[in-house]
Amino acid sequence: MRTHKLGELRKGDVGKTVTLAGWVHRRRDHGGLIFIDLRDRFGLTQAVFDPKDSLNAFEPAKDLRSEWVIQIEGTVRERGEGLTNPKLKTGEIEILVTKLTILSQAKTPPFSIADEMIDVHEEKRLKFRYLDIRRGSVAKNLLLRDQAFQMIRHFMAKHQFVDITTPLLGRSTPEGSRDYLVPSRIHPGNFYALPQSPQLYKQLLMISGMDRYYQIAPCLRDEDLRSDRQPEFTQLDLEMSFSDPEELISLMEELFVDLFNSLADAKVCSPFKRMSYQECFERYGTDRPDLRFGMELVRVTDIAKDSQFSIFVDQITSGAVVKGLKVEGGSELSRKEIDKYTSFVGQFGIQGLAWMKMKEGALTSSIVKFFSEEQQKTLIERFDIQENDLIFMICFEEKRANIVLDHLRRKIAHDRGLIEEKKFAFLWVTDFPMFEYSEEQKRVIAVHHPFSMPHPDDLSFMEQEPLKVRSVAYDLVLNGYELGGGSQRIHDEGVQKRVFDVLQLSKEQAQEQFGFFLEALSYGTPPHLGIAFGLDRVAMLLCGTDHIRDVIAFPKTQRATDLMTSAPSAVAPEQLAELKIEMTNREAWTPELS
Amino acid sequence: MRTHKLGELRKGDVGKTVTLAGWVHRRRDHGGLIFIDLRDRFGLTQAVFDPKDSLNAFEPAKDLRSEWVIQIEGTVRERGEGLTNPKLKTGEIEILVTKLTILSQAKTPPFSIADEMIDVHEEKRLKFRYLDIRRGSVAKNLLLRDQAFQMIRHFMAKHQFVDITTPLLGRSTPEGSRDYLVPSRIHPGNFYALPQSPQLYKQLLMISGMDRYYQIAPCLRDEDLRSDRQPEFTQLDLEMSFSDPEELISLMEELFVDLFNSLADAKVCSPFKRMSYQECFERYGTDRPDLRFGMELVRVTDIAKDSQFSIFVDQITSGAVVKGLKVEGGSELSRKEIDKYTSFVGQFGIQGLAWMKMKEGALTSSIVKFFSEEQQKTLIERFDIQENDLIFMICFEEKRANIVLDHLRRKIAHDRGLIEEKKFAFLWVTDFPMFEYSEEQKRVIAVHHPFSMPHPDDLSFMEQEPLKVRSVAYDLVLNGYELGGGSQRIHDEGVQKRVFDVLQLSKEQAQEQFGFFLEALSYGTPPHLGIAFGLDRVAMLLCGTDHIRDVIAFPKTQRATDLMTSAPSAVAPEQLAELKIEMTNREAWTPELS
Repeated sequence: MRTHKLGELRKGDVGKTVTLAGWVHRRRDHGGLIFIDLRDRFGLTQAVFDPKDSLNAFEPAKDLRSEWVIQIEGTVRERGEGLTNPKLKTGEIEILVTKLTILSQAKTPPFSIADEMIDVHEEKRLKFRYLDIRRGSVAKNLLLRDQAFQMIRHFMAKHQFVDITTPLLGRSTPEGSRDYLVPSRIHPGNFYALPQSPQLYKQLLMISGMDRYYQIAPCLRDEDLRSDRQPEFTQLDLEMSFSDPEELISLMEELFVDLFNSLADAKVCSPFKRMSYQECFERYGTDRPDLRFGMELVRVTDIAKDSQFSIFVDQITSGAVVKGLKVEGGSELSRKEIDKYTSFVGQFGIQGLAWMKMKEGALTSSIVKFFSEEQQKTLIERFDIQENDLIFMICFEEKRANIVLDHLRRKIAHDRGLIEEKKFAFLWVTDFPMFEYSEEQKRVIAVHHPFSMPHPDDLSFMEQEPLKVRSVAYDLVLNGYELGGGSQRIHDEGVQKRVFDVLQLSKEQAQEQFGFFLEALSYGTPPHLGIAFGLDRVAMLLCGTDHIRDVIAFPKTQRATDLMTSAPSAVAPEQLAELKIEMTNREAWTPELS
Repeated sequence: MRTHKLGELRKGDVGKTVTLAGWVHRRRDHGGLIFIDLRDRFGLTQAVFDPKDSLNAFEPAKDLRSEWVIQIEGTVRERGEGLTNPKLKTGEIEILVTKLTILSQAKTPPFSIADEMIDVHEEKRLKFRYLDIRRGSVAKNLLLRDQAFQMIRHFMAKHQFVDITTPLLGRSTPEGSRDYLVPSRIHPGNFYALPQSPQLYKQLLMISGMDRYYQIAPCLRDEDLRSDRQPEFTQLDLEMSFSDPEELISLMEELFVDLFNSLADAKVCSPFKRMSYQECFERYGTDRPDLRFGMELVRVTDIAKDSQFSIFVDQITSGAVVKGLKVEGGSELSRKEIDKYTSFVGQFGIQGLAWMKMKEGALTSSIVKFFSEEQQKTLIERFDIQENDLIFMICFEEKRANIVLDHLRRKIAHDRGLIEEKKFAFLWVTDFPMFEYSEEQKRVIAVHHPFSMPHPDDLSFMEQEPLKVRSVAYDLVLNGYELGGGSQRIHDEGVQKRVFDVLQLSKEQAQEQFGFFLEALSYGTPPHLGIAFGLDRVAMLLCGTDHIRDVIAFPKTQRATDLMTSAPSAVAPEQLAELKIEMTNREAWTPELS
């Protein structure tokens, strides 16, 4: 149906007879001629219909409209002088058409395909996703994502990881996020769960002796969505035996250096920085700091405590901390701009944002007077305040203060253009706590998952002080996003049982939920470890977009709906009857389009 | 943790100090020494513990049992004369151990890992799948499957197919097999369906201009299972625009020649044979004939009709046909063996299996007398009967006769060893009927799916005689298995609507189920076509096994259960409450182990 694709023909092809096919991208009538830009995934090629050369082609060409699909035959010729288009790979040639076949007509699309900038609500773009992809930018992302997948697979195979498919229809487990459930027809009242990750299967593969496993695995979580989350996502999942975190980290660094330098035009070097979980929170208020810029957090509780600033002093007495950050050259911020940041932190329930400016060698602001000269000097030293700098300080319970300062730090960096484009700041976060206390569940839960190995130095106080136990776990963070996380796994049945005890899984529950796994551990389990990366997020960063939806062919909305197919949907009563299911409630929903 | 894997060390490594790790495969005590075969995925290496060389290693080695996981340090040395093992890649060396670390102890497994032949019920092997994989033969299949996936991906990328992930949470559609449903929590009473195939998505990708798409896609069907089916399976799914069946077929032939010649040591050549659906049934009684052997079916209704054999004559009068096959050298079959085949066809509800033998130049059997000399001569010619051959004949309604003869043909080939090992007989089946009549649904349904293009020559009588309409569809068959099927797709909204009409989808139903797709077709759809292959089945044939479960890491039983994790299972009442679901019935099931 075509001899060439539409990005292929060059000056060297002049004189050839060719057959091309594609979409009518643009049409211009000029001097009795009709010009068509013909488009496919590979490029654009200009076609000319000239009544002198072929009336048979010219006459039907009059009817052509945007997005019709056509096939043309003709001769490649050089464009006239001054008519070449240096922006196009095919910009030096055009096709003089001798035959036109209309393959498919097209209604006028709901938004323009050819215009680069259009103002269309995202819901409409999602409903007509196939047209949105046709516009080009999502298509480009999908091609880059494919490239990344190819590189990853090539790398994994080179390092003897075996691609093994694990089941989608698995068993629901109580740990972790909410499962998507699938009712069983053959065993009514029983359910499969779709995998949140192939965690247990990959550990079982290590027990089975497969040594190195990987999979680009579809995973699903029934959680409320954020802009960088989707109910289904794609994970690079891997596991290896007889190895250690250093080997795994160095392998993964090689992979990511390769990926980002080849595909995102980055200049990343290994080894990547490493920082403990503890240090991350101290310096950045988060376990996934964006290291593309500075503005580290500074703790000044000790100074504030002895000041005359009673608002701070009172709160410190009831357990609050004072932390802040320095905005270089920030004294230029107007009162109004500072107020904007004050209301920004207000969203997080924090009333005050204290600030001081350094002007003509001295700190100024309404609160400076509450700090002695000595205290001001210490502040200046601690923050390393220079002329024209500004500092912000927050006094609040530590956890909340960190959350707010993390957000504030990123907002200021964004507002002040501190973030270099094409900069990729990788960071390994280590020494995660094994457990945390869940207010919601009123018990200790696992920070990563219950299969991570507790740090050998901390095993002795696991039962008494579980919140102090670190795990042998590591997260990879890039530009403020968590790309993935992994750990050395427990390969000892006894330790695994102790972890379940700390999680207050009763013996019966542990047996019911994980009995098969505990038994598997008892038949000769090699030391093993692994990691999993969110590939949609990796692709998002490679493509330089902020939206996970931009790198997924058919994404869902934040309400987990597919606006194109209108899924989820009602199903036939017979389908539910076969599953022995009744609904206690049914809520109709209609895709709302602006 | 190890300097070498266990299939690596050779004579050239003698003298090296090495660290190895793996499972204790076998242990022998001999002449005051302890010998251990240490095992991993890559091979076996012999380790020797000698009290003279290292009492520190020898003493704990006394405790070692099968399947313990250990790490050893030692020196590579040549084995003594007469003690080499030519069956092992490492058979010329052994390790004199100086240090032993026990990494993990092991209970006695429920079946032997080291013995090649064991008699264990498959249910037990499935429950302890991780141990079954450790035994080696499933592991070997998984490695071969991985190799096949790598070759496929490489091939697809070379030909500019883009690997695009399509959603798992889709919309339930009434056509096709039974969907697995996933209740929506956010939209109670609505359901997602897991994909039976990414059919609509891949066609939408063509509409979106992606030109060539492929995916190794997980698919699911809630059907009752057979030995070569699983509820979830892996499909090589592809679609291409601006192409035609000839180009697709030749691409796929290149891929499969490559796969089978490289990985299964086959000697396959392209082009593959082709046969119309019609001809397949005529000559083999099935649309997926096994062409590794002959024994084609022969139709002799005309001869039987004029014979004196009243049983045949009566049935022919009421519409039956007479078809048969010739067993070369089959006159050696005893009466008892013939009776065995008679009861074999009896399973399919067919009472009689007529037969004749050629002995000393004449046909013999109890029914020969009902055929005139002329009729016998015609039979001999039609079947090409030679001395010592035997023919079987069946008189029944055509469809059933074909089914029975297909089974009989394959059974006889199997019994008589007519099937060469390592022979791979590929066949394209073409000219499928577009529609068939479903007795169950009392309406016309699509043979493949409703998106296949009706043959252009047959469009004119689609409404009047739909059962005569062929589709532009093609199946690839190998050794009697359907590997996959595909078709040119409808790219015209009007034709698509006519097909829905024939399927008696009302305008409202079509709109409700496929409205978004019909609309998509109207915005400029390129001619496109595609195919999908069942990769589990491909892997099964590559691995030379008859069981799909042998090439899947964690397969399900024919009752769609996972005996290892006991999925599906009951879930917490809160989980169902969140989904607003009530069960009208709950059936407990327990994995039965023999």
